[in-house]
Amino acid sequence: MRMTELIEKKRNGLELTTEELYFIIRGYVQGTIPDYQMAALTMAIFFQGMTARETADLTMAMVESGERVEISLPGKIVVDKHSSGGVGDKTTLIVGPLVAACGIPVAKMSGRGLGHTGGTIDKLQSIPGLNVEMNQDAFCHQVKKIGIAIIAQSNSLVPADKKLYALRDVTATVDSIPLIASSIMSKKIASGAKAIVLDVKYGSGAFMSSEQKARELAQAMVDIGKKLGRDTVAIISNMSQPLGRAVGNSLEVLEAIECLQGRGPKDLMEVCLELAAWMLVVGQITDSSKSARAILTDVLDQGKAWEKFLELVAAQGGDILKLKNKDLLLSPLKAHYKAPVQGYIQNIDARKIGMSAMILGAGRENKDSSIDYGAGIYLRKKTGEPVQKGEALFDLYTSDGQKIQPALELLDQAVTITESYSPNQPLISTVID
Amino acid sequence: MRMTELIEKKRNGLELTTEELYFIIRGYVQGTIPDYQMAALTMAIFFQGMTARETADLTMAMVESGERVEISLPGKIVVDKHSSGGVGDKTTLIVGPLVAACGIPVAKMSGRGLGHTGGTIDKLQSIPGLNVEMNQDAFCHQVKKIGIAIIAQSNSLVPADKKLYALRDVTATVDSIPLIASSIMSKKIASGAKAIVLDVKYGSGAFMSSEQKARELAQAMVDIGKKLGRDTVAIISNMSQPLGRAVGNSLEVLEAIECLQGRGPKDLMEVCLELAAWMLVVGQITDSSKSARAILTDVLDQGKAWEKFLELVAAQGGDILKLKNKDLLLSPLKAHYKAPVQGYIQNIDARKIGMSAMILGAGRENKDSSIDYGAGIYLRKKTGEPVQKGEALFDLYTSDGQKIQPALELLDQAVTITESYSPNQPLISTVID
Repeated sequence: MRMTELIEKKRNGLELTTEELYFIIRGYVQGTIPDYQMAALTMAIFFQGMTARETADLTMAMVESGERVEISLPGKIVVDKHSSGGVGDKTTLIVGPLVAACGIPVAKMSGRGLGHTGGTIDKLQSIPGLNVEMNQDAFCHQVKKIGIAIIAQSNSLVPADKKLYALRDVTATVDSIPLIASSIMSKKIASGAKAIVLDVKYGSGAFMSSEQKARELAQAMVDIGKKLGRDTVAIISNMSQPLGRAVGNSLEVLEAIECLQGRGPKDLMEVCLELAAWMLVVGQITDSSKSARAILTDVLDQGKAWEKFLELVAAQGGDILKLKNKDLLLSPLKAHYKAPVQGYIQNIDARKIGMSAMILGAGRENKDSSIDYGAGIYLRKKTGEPVQKGEALFDLYTSDGQKIQPALELLDQAVTITESYSPNQPLISTVID
Repeated sequence: MRMTELIEKKRNGLELTTEELYFIIRGYVQGTIPDYQMAALTMAIFFQGMTARETADLTMAMVESGERVEISLPGKIVVDKHSSGGVGDKTTLIVGPLVAACGIPVAKMSGRGLGHTGGTIDKLQSIPGLNVEMNQDAFCHQVKKIGIAIIAQSNSLVPADKKLYALRDVTATVDSIPLIASSIMSKKIASGAKAIVLDVKYGSGAFMSSEQKARELAQAMVDIGKKLGRDTVAIISNMSQPLGRAVGNSLEVLEAIECLQGRGPKDLMEVCLELAAWMLVVGQITDSSKSARAILTDVLDQGKAWEKFLELVAAQGGDILKLKNKDLLLSPLKAHYKAPVQGYIQNIDARKIGMSAMILGAGRENKDSSIDYGAGIYLRKKTGEPVQKGEALFDLYTSDGQKIQPALELLDQAVTITESYSPNQPLISTVID
């Protein structure tokens, strides 16, 4: 096989075979296929797309480029959950313990935040003492022992994806549905998932700007899962305003505790329950999302989800006492963002809230930036609520007073207040299964 | 400027500015823009194309990446001629001396052959003693002194094109009209052309398979020339059968001599006269291709073109006596290809004739192959002529008897004989000026 001919084949809109895709990924990881040929191929894929079969083959070729986690739990199905990222998305902290408490083994590898989006690992690390680095044996052992572990992504999984993503990032080939879908799914499968529930978000705070694009990405991932024997379900959810009221690491953990104790914000709880319900279905605990909802409500009401969270934090070395007392590091409250006029909140731009929180210290401008776990924004008001002129809408937390002014300026662009409120798109629009 | 953003801009179908194109070419030649980013950009250009303005800017950015030939001849316009390559195309050997004899200075840098196509430099080198390597001073001096020089392309001209072409060759991005057009035109302009006549060929033996594609390429090159102040004319000519009857280096020089002495094959003379006529027009010797034809016929009839050729060969150290006596190296005639049936020759596939001649030793399979100047094929019959079963159609010349059989097998696929002849497309279909 000659790489130039494979590039030409894809360029001309033809389908690459299984053998050809494995040849490409193996050669790329081994260095026999140079970056410049891979760059030309990914740009050709950007324009010509890939069939479901090609995308599934690419995914497995990437999975097989590195180590794989295998957790054998007789009679149980390891279910993973993935969110395409957003602002205020702390669902893993809630859904993980919740479904673990229902008997689903949760073996989760998560990422860190970048830019306006947060990362589960950063949020967990705002709990004093909590350890997110673990070798594979310890990881599997914890899942077997308490039913849940959440750690940082291992570098030895899917090296092909790491190398390819770095290349795509500097060659303007990130925005390709089959490449995004295979990147995400390869990591889920390599980390041991036997079934997968996806939360694909659209809107200003999401990676996908339109519902249509989110639907295409969701369909591509569900197709990969099905072709590779992983029962996969995707929900499409709206990320035009932040999820919940808390944006920032400690703030989000505190809100997750509220949820685990049954007192969380409605929109956040709705996304968590929908995701958890589908995890019970693909994990074969029950056969419909409706019956799953009943189980979940019971488990929450009995405090079992909150107990499982405490168990998780304890197992990973976190300070339970501080967590119970909600004694997490919070930066001093420095300012409020106040309503400039009276009316109804028509929109809160999630990306701008995320960027503003990043400026306050809650996020990373680039991969090497450090984080202020106590920084962030708390939304007292959300879309649809009435406000008075001068009323405090958002609380700003930061350790650096000089960041207040630029953060407030960005918030001023983030909020739209109108005389009457016209409802936005629904929070959850579709389930693809 | 960030290269990733420029790739994305082109990927999204937007136009790159002059400054952006110069930034890209300078960075690529200097090595600050890596091959992988250039590969992604060229694939994006393959899909999105370039405007005439972008293509002209790219051309000048490439010209300015290296040295430039400047020949100042007061009152005269240095005219260059370029053919997009084919089989049996020895027009430069005829047109060069012909227009030089009419007062047009010819400062020509030519290439070598590869695959089924021959190269002017190889053809010239079949003349014993002839030198095709010359420094810029000697080259300019010869043009000033005798009005013509034909040498091998210098390595110091258009280094950007050399680097970019090598990359395109291994990333399946050769077949892009703006990239082909800027590559060709940058070399013409860097070698000092003030006006240019192009012969863009289509058909089995040409780089462009369809007339439509040839027309697009021709238009793109004429647009570049006009934008850069070089009067440019293109003819579109048919290369479905070889041009003339000789294919192979010494054989083609012998046929060129016939033409220069006024006895050449009709199709070859027609292309030569058309190209030469337009060269007189853009060189401002006369104002119409019709009046140019009259001048050319006179010059040929008076033997001035043949004299100019002898002068050229002498100036470059070639053996005039051998040339006058037509005493060039010819490999022993080894075989004839005979008509398998009676009828009319409907088609002679130029690419297959070129490949067959290459097998006999006349061409290079790859860049490092050596050439047998005496090898080749002489076509006794051409398209439209009647043939008897068993009649010799082609003479095969080679120094290696073992090559006869594979060459004959390929020739068998090259010829189509039918009961009656239906005329093919015209030899010259369009002139773009």
